[in-house]
Amino acid sequence: MAVKHRLPGSFISYRRALRVELRKAIDSCPSALGSILRYHMGWQDEHGHSCIRESGKFIRSTLCLLCCQAVGGDTSQVMPAAAAVELIHNFSLIHDDIEDASYERHHRPTVWKLWGQSQAINAGDAMFSLAYLALLRLKEKGIADEKIVSSTEMLSLACLDLCEGQYLDVDYENRLDTTVEDYLDMAAKKTAALFALSTSMGAYLGSQDSKLVDSFHLFGKELGIAYQICDDILGIWGGEESVGKSVTDISQRKKTLPVVYGLRNSRGEARKKLEGLYSQKSIEGDEIAEVTKILDHLGAKDYAENLAERYYDKALAEVEATGLDRSGQAPLKETACFLLKRDF
Amino acid sequence: MAVKHRLPGSFISYRRALRVELRKAIDSCPSALGSILRYHMGWQDEHGHSCIRESGKFIRSTLCLLCCQAVGGDTSQVMPAAAAVELIHNFSLIHDDIEDASYERHHRPTVWKLWGQSQAINAGDAMFSLAYLALLRLKEKGIADEKIVSSTEMLSLACLDLCEGQYLDVDYENRLDTTVEDYLDMAAKKTAALFALSTSMGAYLGSQDSKLVDSFHLFGKELGIAYQICDDILGIWGGEESVGKSVTDISQRKKTLPVVYGLRNSRGEARKKLEGLYSQKSIEGDEIAEVTKILDHLGAKDYAENLAERYYDKALAEVEATGLDRSGQAPLKETACFLLKRDF
Repeated sequence: MAVKHRLPGSFISYRRALRVELRKAIDSCPSALGSILRYHMGWQDEHGHSCIRESGKFIRSTLCLLCCQAVGGDTSQVMPAAAAVELIHNFSLIHDDIEDASYERHHRPTVWKLWGQSQAINAGDAMFSLAYLALLRLKEKGIADEKIVSSTEMLSLACLDLCEGQYLDVDYENRLDTTVEDYLDMAAKKTAALFALSTSMGAYLGSQDSKLVDSFHLFGKELGIAYQICDDILGIWGGEESVGKSVTDISQRKKTLPVVYGLRNSRGEARKKLEGLYSQKSIEGDEIAEVTKILDHLGAKDYAENLAERYYDKALAEVEATGLDRSGQAPLKETACFLLKRDF
Repeated sequence: MAVKHRLPGSFISYRRALRVELRKAIDSCPSALGSILRYHMGWQDEHGHSCIRESGKFIRSTLCLLCCQAVGGDTSQVMPAAAAVELIHNFSLIHDDIEDASYERHHRPTVWKLWGQSQAINAGDAMFSLAYLALLRLKEKGIADEKIVSSTEMLSLACLDLCEGQYLDVDYENRLDTTVEDYLDMAAKKTAALFALSTSMGAYLGSQDSKLVDSFHLFGKELGIAYQICDDILGIWGGEESVGKSVTDISQRKKTLPVVYGLRNSRGEARKKLEGLYSQKSIEGDEIAEVTKILDHLGAKDYAENLAERYYDKALAEVEATGLDRSGQAPLKETACFLLKRDF
């Protein structure tokens, strides 16, 4: 895969163990439903034959393990928690693809496209259940029950935020009055909540220091918002190849940051045009280029890049706030940098 | 509500405390998404105004509390677990209504009908997360962490079964070769898994005796299968009023037990007719009466009633197997009887 050489070492070093843990979790799901989940993970083709089309980068689970390691924890012990956040992410992708009517993910047909909406709902729900079962394997690793209970609560609260974020994301599609504040609230829930869970749970399970955990939580949150903004930029200016989806954010009328900025900062004809397009049911063909042109003209890309940079700086400040020594901070900073310097 | 006077005393005595616990759980879900969940529970109308249209009977949560009480446990302590199973049931109803394209539940429009499929998916996912958060309130009630971890695992395994059961239910729609064994596997997962969770978790949290818990698990499982068969019978012969839904199982080509029996035991013209109808995309209007007539002629209702009775007897045998004294067994038997003697 072309993207692989850009991955920091930690992504590669954890990958194998993570895949083993994820396989263990998903293989406990019986029969045909398990096959759908393995297809989604890129381990099987749609006929159930083994293949390796895995294209997720395991970002959230790697963050979890990195933060565990940064506080001196044993990553092999925390592997079930890392698998759990990855499974939560994937449950939300399966449902998200239905909601967005996305035909493709990672250049393959989405689950609902192959098996229909009903079975995709069931597959996502099963993945959700498996995430908890994965997390509970912390017990086999010798993690204390008290920590497992707290981790389960952290996970559930993040999931609730995730659902709320998804709700807002869909709700905003039909609105023209979304503010940057609304957007940031949505991004904090839809994306950053799971990043923050990953970083804080990794640190929590790896150490005893609860003050540390707060900094790690904020690190994940700021990083997650920055990541979402970068995703928004890629969704408009990244081209199909780098996004791996056939339907762009614009055609779905997503209120991504550049669009929110554009709708609030355009004037006269441009505003009328933009509002007109975003009042349609969907935005198609040449209209997409029209939107992009207006956003370009308004400097929406620069605006979004600058805001992403600000959240990135905040994230790095939280790494400093952990009080870890430089060698402890380095992998976290390197990963943050990698996540935000994708393809643009 | 007309149905209320038939409820056993335990359903009424627990109802108030259960509603308080459920409200606490759902009110922790913020903003507009919480409103959708309160609508689904019957506590709000679609505009967010308070109302009381609650029509669920809290069967699963009541079973949980009854089993806790039967083993001498403190039901107020176990209330969070009872709320959790009720929330899991309701998450699955919200998703189930999308999958079945059901317009009505309890004589009100379904969530997806009012807010669309995407938000109904998100609402169900949020309800799922809230179930875990509800369960974790066992900690505030002084339940030991070890028991909370085990309960979380029991809940998650039941959810996985539930998803698998839902998968099979949808999968069978497009098949003509479903056997009674296939059907029972589906019913055990789709319905009985949550019944078994309710009864076993109630007993587990209320006592120390793990042998007891096994009998309670089997009691819930057998009862759940019997309940599902009765539901199947009501879905065909119960009429719209008692089912509270506008679309019947027949029009959705559900492989309910009477239909499975009919497809396997009909001969000649009747079989051809039945297979023809169940090969269509849906079964409408007069065709529904045709199916019912064939099933009547084959004695499919008697067959299903007899099988329900057998599972009911098995459930009662498991109550006996608990070794509780007669006064301890009585409420469980009374409830089992109530659940199976609905409206026919």
